[in-house]
Amino acid sequence: MNFKELQKVKIEQIEHILKESLPKVQGEQNIIVEAMEYSLLAGGKRIRPMLMQETYRMFQGEQEELLHLFMAAMEMIHTYSLVHDDLPAMDDDEYRRGRKTTHIVYGEDMGILAGDALLNYAFETAASAFEKFPQESLKIGKAIQILGKKAGIFGMIGGQVVDVQSTGKQISGETLEFIYRLKTGALIEASMMIGAVLAGAGTEEISGMEKIAQKIGMAFQIQDDILDVTSTTQVLGKPVKSDEKNEKMTYVVWKGLDKAKEEVEELSREAIKELRKYHPKDTYLEELLESLIYREK
Amino acid sequence: MNFKELQKVKIEQIEHILKESLPKVQGEQNIIVEAMEYSLLAGGKRIRPMLMQETYRMFQGEQEELLHLFMAAMEMIHTYSLVHDDLPAMDDDEYRRGRKTTHIVYGEDMGILAGDALLNYAFETAASAFEKFPQESLKIGKAIQILGKKAGIFGMIGGQVVDVQSTGKQISGETLEFIYRLKTGALIEASMMIGAVLAGAGTEEISGMEKIAQKIGMAFQIQDDILDVTSTTQVLGKPVKSDEKNEKMTYVVWKGLDKAKEEVEELSREAIKELRKYHPKDTYLEELLESLIYREK
Repeated sequence: MNFKELQKVKIEQIEHILKESLPKVQGEQNIIVEAMEYSLLAGGKRIRPMLMQETYRMFQGEQEELLHLFMAAMEMIHTYSLVHDDLPAMDDDEYRRGRKTTHIVYGEDMGILAGDALLNYAFETAASAFEKFPQESLKIGKAIQILGKKAGIFGMIGGQVVDVQSTGKQISGETLEFIYRLKTGALIEASMMIGAVLAGAGTEEISGMEKIAQKIGMAFQIQDDILDVTSTTQVLGKPVKSDEKNEKMTYVVWKGLDKAKEEVEELSREAIKELRKYHPKDTYLEELLESLIYREK
Repeated sequence: MNFKELQKVKIEQIEHILKESLPKVQGEQNIIVEAMEYSLLAGGKRIRPMLMQETYRMFQGEQEELLHLFMAAMEMIHTYSLVHDDLPAMDDDEYRRGRKTTHIVYGEDMGILAGDALLNYAFETAASAFEKFPQESLKIGKAIQILGKKAGIFGMIGGQVVDVQSTGKQISGETLEFIYRLKTGALIEASMMIGAVLAGAGTEEISGMEKIAQKIGMAFQIQDDILDVTSTTQVLGKPVKSDEKNEKMTYVVWKGLDKAKEEVEELSREAIKELRKYHPKDTYLEELLESLIYREK
């Protein structure tokens, strides 16, 4: 199988894991599980669970079932953040990836509750690992700590807060980097770190993954800014030049298009170089990173 | 010290624990910590952490510091649920306990994010126990599992979902009981269960606490319905007869005032009788339960 075929298979596997991760409730609260499923199974690149899985594999982890609990938990946290981000009081988006957003389909109250439920269920899912793998409780504890920290006010939520506060304001390049590092970067860092932790990697390796993931997250986000300027609406599936129209501070606005492209290349090159220290010949992971960064949409 | 004096001291201790539990951020995301603190330190009876603490003491737990992490986590979860409940798309409340609600002070977007941040930080706080008490990781894992389950769709959120769906509709007494058991009861159950788990109690004892807490939670909630009919606005600090005005289904509407009062007495008597099996002479805990149930407001 070539890279594209392999990636497709892996995404299908992740979709299956996500589907299986949700509870099968037969009760009065059924509607919330429906709303959780609607948002969790809305497609997407599944970058976070995929990076977690590949990092786990790189460090020769062998308990797939344990890993799957955390892959699902991670994607639930990412999904809840999108559901809440789309709410009228936040970005007020009616569509995401061509589908109606959760609060449009289920109502604003259920949108809030479905987000809460996904966040809570992420930790429930991760914590269920204690029962299933009691002999791994130290690893599980460490992984839950990372998940909490990188999703919280020192991670993703912290980035969202500053992003919300910056809307419609002139912000500095430093603030922009802060937002990117936390809002997008933190969960990518957590994904690779947790993959390493669960596979039994050591402290140095875990912090190595954190640094690599930081570069990947930043490159990914800068590429987003670049595509808004260089792509077409047809390819991107959403309006281009929207940042300019909204007078939004972006990496391209800050440093210019050429410098932004250079930065993506440098970050990407550094990330791959660092990765090779841990696993010299992991061509799938390298191709994955390049496909994530140098993407067309 | 008599009961009232002792209770006052204990509440002050809990306030201190909560205050210490919040992060001291010096960064761009400061505002979110302010909003978390505003809602977490807004007073209240602190029923959940107090029941956790007393259950812990009853089972001779001796690691106060470990307990405190979970007391704080529990109150954070309770608080986030209030912050989200007050949002315009939910109950749309501008005041709670005589203070402006979080979204009124900080804006609706920050209200959503502060709730998310409190829920996330609850799990972060609980998970920080792994680092501080690595030798207790099995207990900690079990406690986090209970916290997640009782706060989620099979617990508090499940109750909220059905409550939101029932608004303005005729519901059955059974649905009312379902809502009370999950929305109010689940966190009270979790509080006593976690107190027992952390103190090293056995499976039978933990499930005993769950059953006792279920009765306490139900009695507490029925008393709420009774007070709405029998109290005065001055004593209660909020409008009385509001349930009747809103044509809301309550236990009093369902069974009548006398039967509701009987039910509270029976539940309370049963709970205390059960408790005495575990600790024959815990007068503080008994007085606490009675003061929580037979309260004036």
